Amino acid sequence: MNAPASSSVVSSAVAEFALRKGDNCLILGHRNSEWCGHAPALEEDIALANTALDLIGQTQLWLGLACEAEGKGRTPDEVAFLRDVSGYRNLLLVEQPNGDFGRTLMRQYLFDAWHLPLLKALMGSADRRIVEIAEKASKEVAYHLERSADLVVRLGDGTAESHARMQAAVDFLWPYTGEMFLADALDEELAAAGLAPEPGSLKAAWQEHVTRTFAEATLKAPEKSFAQKGGRRGVHSEHLGYILAEMQFLQRAYPGANW
Amino acid sequence: MNAPASSSVVSSAVAEFALRKGDNCLILGHRNSEWCGHAPALEEDIALANTALDLIGQTQLWLGLACEAEGKGRTPDEVAFLRDVSGYRNLLLVEQPNGDFGRTLMRQYLFDAWHLPLLKALMGSADRRIVEIAEKASKEVAYHLERSADLVVRLGDGTAESHARMQAAVDFLWPYTGEMFLADALDEELAAAGLAPEPGSLKAAWQEHVTRTFAEATLKAPEKSFAQKGGRRGVHSEHLGYILAEMQFLQRAYPGANW
Repeated sequence: MNAPASSSVVSSAVAEFALRKGDNCLILGHRNSEWCGHAPALEEDIALANTALDLIGQTQLWLGLACEAEGKGRTPDEVAFLRDVSGYRNLLLVEQPNGDFGRTLMRQYLFDAWHLPLLKALMGSADRRIVEIAEKASKEVAYHLERSADLVVRLGDGTAESHARMQAAVDFLWPYTGEMFLADALDEELAAAGLAPEPGSLKAAWQEHVTRTFAEATLKAPEKSFAQKGGRRGVHSEHLGYILAEMQFLQRAYPGANW
Repeated sequence: MNAPASSSVVSSAVAEFALRKGDNCLILGHRNSEWCGHAPALEEDIALANTALDLIGQTQLWLGLACEAEGKGRTPDEVAFLRDVSGYRNLLLVEQPNGDFGRTLMRQYLFDAWHLPLLKALMGSADRRIVEIAEKASKEVAYHLERSADLVVRLGDGTAESHARMQAAVDFLWPYTGEMFLADALDEELAAAGLAPEPGSLKAAWQEHVTRTFAEATLKAPEKSFAQKGGRRGVHSEHLGYILAEMQFLQRAYPGANW
């Protein structure tokens, strides 16, 4: 990859890119946090909460970079808590409702299997700040993927009931996976500048991991390739608004509150 | 009933009383509005939405009176949308989750069977403003009660499935009915001033209606008399916070917005 141009065009591209990455972590972290105290077993409850904490930690790094690159003096907290739906840049996959434990796990797995190759590619970014975040996050995400893949296999190849639930989860979530590999003008600009990989380049690694895991889990990937999309340009499903209403209540009702 | 004293003590009692009445209507109206587009049949969807609209209309009247009696220059919109949980004075009954259609209906019925006798008693209040609101609201609520009682009978004395669901709804909601008939210092003050009936005086009419309706519906009232309470002094179940997060999002995110 090449050395980055330091123009404001590149800064604004980095800001938008960091927002996309941060919002994925923020919304998936929030979804996982909804399980706190409700998971089917204590160990799973703690694991989900820890995954949520990792993701919120990564959110702080990415939104911190977004604010720095944007240069408008906003803080990560303001960016996280004071935008409305159309300002969010996350994938539609991560905002989908938790459903049962199986669907939550499957969503996590499908995301992790994309997230890790993405972070590994970003460790070769021409932007030092991106490299640093990717290096830190990839250690956590490697563990997320190991865990979610293991549970997908155990539940997919488990009882008739757990298998049926995991297959239903795949069928429900599959149309939301295609968006991860679609490129828009920003992705092309970032790839050309050596800042981030072309999204399509991550597909082979993801596909290989999913195929292997599903084979072991006795699960079947749907053949339809239709992909829901829009999240990265702020066009979201109805669910995001409800997430924001809960997630933002404190900062909206008590502006500037902190602890 | 006697003519009201016009002291500020009485005004503040009227304000608190109107807040309690208004918050019941606001929260139950909001709960009913959650069904919009989701009810099991089109006619029920429209009926629930109309009930919600009636209750929100009554909310405006009660909160308008609360603001007038309070004399602090607040508007009903501010009171409805800018308080936090502990500021709400509604019964715990109305904030309970919708559950299935049967539970929503049962909650409505148990409330209506109390609401109508209350409004009829308030038509004899020493405060002209309370009389006016009660007269207007009682026409709407007479219809709410007719409809909810009719549906409780039809579903209670319906199929095995609908009967089981209605009985489960009674069992779940029953502990939240006792709060309607409990008196605190404010209730005693209002009753002494001829402004509102003593809450316990409404119990016989409610009990009679429920006994008759349940007999026809082949439903059984639980024998336990344990009553959840706290709503009228701002001690709420966990559910109210989530209601407020959704209900207040617009005014919190866009202060002063109107249409």
